[in-house]
Amino acid sequence: MFQFSEQPHKRKNLLTGEYILVSPHRSKRPWQGQVEDVVGAERPAYDPQCYLCPGNARAEGSVNPAYTNSFVFVNDFSALLEETVPETQADGGLLIAEAERGICKVISFSPRHDLTLPEMSTEAIKAVVDLWQKEFVDLSVHEWIKYIQIFENKGAIMGCSNPHPHGQIWAQSSIPVEIEKESKQQLKYYKEKGRTLLSDYLSLELEKNERIIVEGEHFVAVVPFWASWPYETMIISKRSIQNIGAFRDDEKLDFAKVLQELTIRYDNIFGTSFPYSAGMHQAPTNDGEHPEWHWHMHFYPPLLRSATVKKFMVGYEMLAMPQRDITPEQAAKTLKEQSTIHYKVKR
Amino acid sequence: MFQFSEQPHKRKNLLTGEYILVSPHRSKRPWQGQVEDVVGAERPAYDPQCYLCPGNARAEGSVNPAYTNSFVFVNDFSALLEETVPETQADGGLLIAEAERGICKVISFSPRHDLTLPEMSTEAIKAVVDLWQKEFVDLSVHEWIKYIQIFENKGAIMGCSNPHPHGQIWAQSSIPVEIEKESKQQLKYYKEKGRTLLSDYLSLELEKNERIIVEGEHFVAVVPFWASWPYETMIISKRSIQNIGAFRDDEKLDFAKVLQELTIRYDNIFGTSFPYSAGMHQAPTNDGEHPEWHWHMHFYPPLLRSATVKKFMVGYEMLAMPQRDITPEQAAKTLKEQSTIHYKVKR
Ligand SMILES: O=P(O)(O)O[C@H]1O[C@H](CO)[C@@H](O)[C@H](O)[C@H]1O
Ligand SMILES: O=P(O)(O)O[C@H]1O[C@H](CO)[C@@H](O)[C@H](O)[C@H]1O
Repeated sequence: MFQFSEQPHKRKNLLTGEYILVSPHRSKRPWQGQVEDVVGAERPAYDPQCYLCPGNARAEGSVNPAYTNSFVFVNDFSALLEETVPETQADGGLLIAEAERGICKVISFSPRHDLTLPEMSTEAIKAVVDLWQKEFVDLSVHEWIKYIQIFENKGAIMGCSNPHPHGQIWAQSSIPVEIEKESKQQLKYYKEKGRTLLSDYLSLELEKNERIIVEGEHFVAVVPFWASWPYETMIISKRSIQNIGAFRDDEKLDFAKVLQELTIRYDNIFGTSFPYSAGMHQAPTNDGEHPEWHWHMHFYPPLLRSATVKKFMVGYEMLAMPQRDITPEQAAKTLKEQSTIHYKVKR
Repeated sequence: MFQFSEQPHKRKNLLTGEYILVSPHRSKRPWQGQVEDVVGAERPAYDPQCYLCPGNARAEGSVNPAYTNSFVFVNDFSALLEETVPETQADGGLLIAEAERGICKVISFSPRHDLTLPEMSTEAIKAVVDLWQKEFVDLSVHEWIKYIQIFENKGAIMGCSNPHPHGQIWAQSSIPVEIEKESKQQLKYYKEKGRTLLSDYLSLELEKNERIIVEGEHFVAVVPFWASWPYETMIISKRSIQNIGAFRDDEKLDFAKVLQELTIRYDNIFGTSFPYSAGMHQAPTNDGEHPEWHWHMHFYPPLLRSATVKKFMVGYEMLAMPQRDITPEQAAKTLKEQSTIHYKVKR
């Protein structure tokens, strides 16, 4: 039996086909480097300065409605624009560029400035899931949209510039790099086995039950065997669903529940609002059949040792391959030990 | 002519084969997010608490010699270990892992605690280059070592835990992910053209002279057309050299000079010790002939708007593809405008 908890080793990420490095013995290393700020005091339920709060003014004069659930609008500083016109260049076959068209949206998860997903009710989270689905369906009506990235940056250390709970959707005219990788790996597996890669992977994980964090009726949260961030997880649908557009109502409710439990466990690890970038991966849109694609959602949280000490994916990681200290199994154990009641509620 | 400075577009990274997204119009976006600490006051030339200063004690009782140039030792908290024994696993064909053997070293660049590369003399930088070469040659004697990653994390925001100027070398028993990608792209090009990808790319860049920052006799620093970090650069050798082991003495001196000028220009942009992760990419060792490989060094610096506001490669970037705001041409222009005299000297 392989001694995962003893020897440095690499593990294969089935979705990208790329390896990550695990150094189990290295968590004993003392830390003298940068520590992050502790996440500030309680926030007010309404902040007159916040561009996401109901009734407030945004950039360029728009005013938010007095919304009561969640609220979506086109990003006032979109990275991609709908009016972009096709253009390509291949100077010397070496300077290769292509215009990219897109739509960027912002979704406020709640009218309440002081909440985050794990502090919201299941019903309120379900309303966010409903809106994600609606936006996905509406955006994919545009024939030119080939991929829709739904994501959330949570916490200042993940580049989030406003603590009001919100996420983003970037829809674009070509298929991005990470999706190409996952398409390729999933297609290869599907062609060989006639089942999706993630349905077989999920069955094996459920059987082993070592890295499973939450098992709902329709969705499962698991620390992937190849997790590279310290407490990285994935939510995987039990059914092979290609995109969020195809979620049934009972599935949306179950997804909301799993999302809630997972993020509560996250907050409880260090008794802090746990920062992460998270987002769904799903089949390209307006791009023919993709039976190989199996919807899932990645969570990439940076904290390693405490609320203020994160993992740096820097030098070696940028130049060679991702590297982690604690094993995915140790991270899973910690996540499983957490209460499913949010630490703020217990007080 | 393609309107790079107007339209959102993607560019192809020739070395990885992967695209990055450029949003030229987006730099006007206001920033309300996290700001980094300003890099602290002057440091003493010698710090009795520093484990890299000459004569000081390190972890586990070793004591540094009273070195006068640069100094190298095995990392006291190595991520890879020489004693690792071969082991593999392919549980269900899905949980795939392999033991990884390696040696991790730390190189102190100077006995002086208060310096950084751009503040050192050309001779002192040349001594570091000499040591990099010696270490590369010595490590590649081990037949089991397939790749040697030489790199530096500079600055607390790049996970560097000690401001004493130093870098690292991780040598390992397999070829890491990023090197595999670059091998593949370079081999494809070499087979087609009989020249290295980077020699043709460098010729084109020298001809255009839009993104060239420093041109030495043997080395050139350029903002790659596909740069994803705001002020990302590459140093490329004019000769198609496969690894640092093959640098001639005049080349080592020229490399030291280019390194010095580039890092001085970096420090001058925001009048701060410019943080980055940097590292050499070179041919695998003990792995047969690699005529396609062309030595180069990447610089990935995170600062975007000021000494305290960095670019966050988060949600969209982690899940889809890297994204940048200012264009590589704008970054090159700023770098070219900088003085070649370090801002601290001028005062
Ligand atoms: O080895 P150090 O300087 O302690 O650690 C730093 O560089 C390593 C190699 O890039 C990373 O794995 C660590 O996350 C980073 O903090
Ligand atoms: O769009 P925001 O929240 O202003 O910006 C944040 O998310 C974006 C998408 O991941 C990133 O490109 C930015 O670097 C980050 O700061």
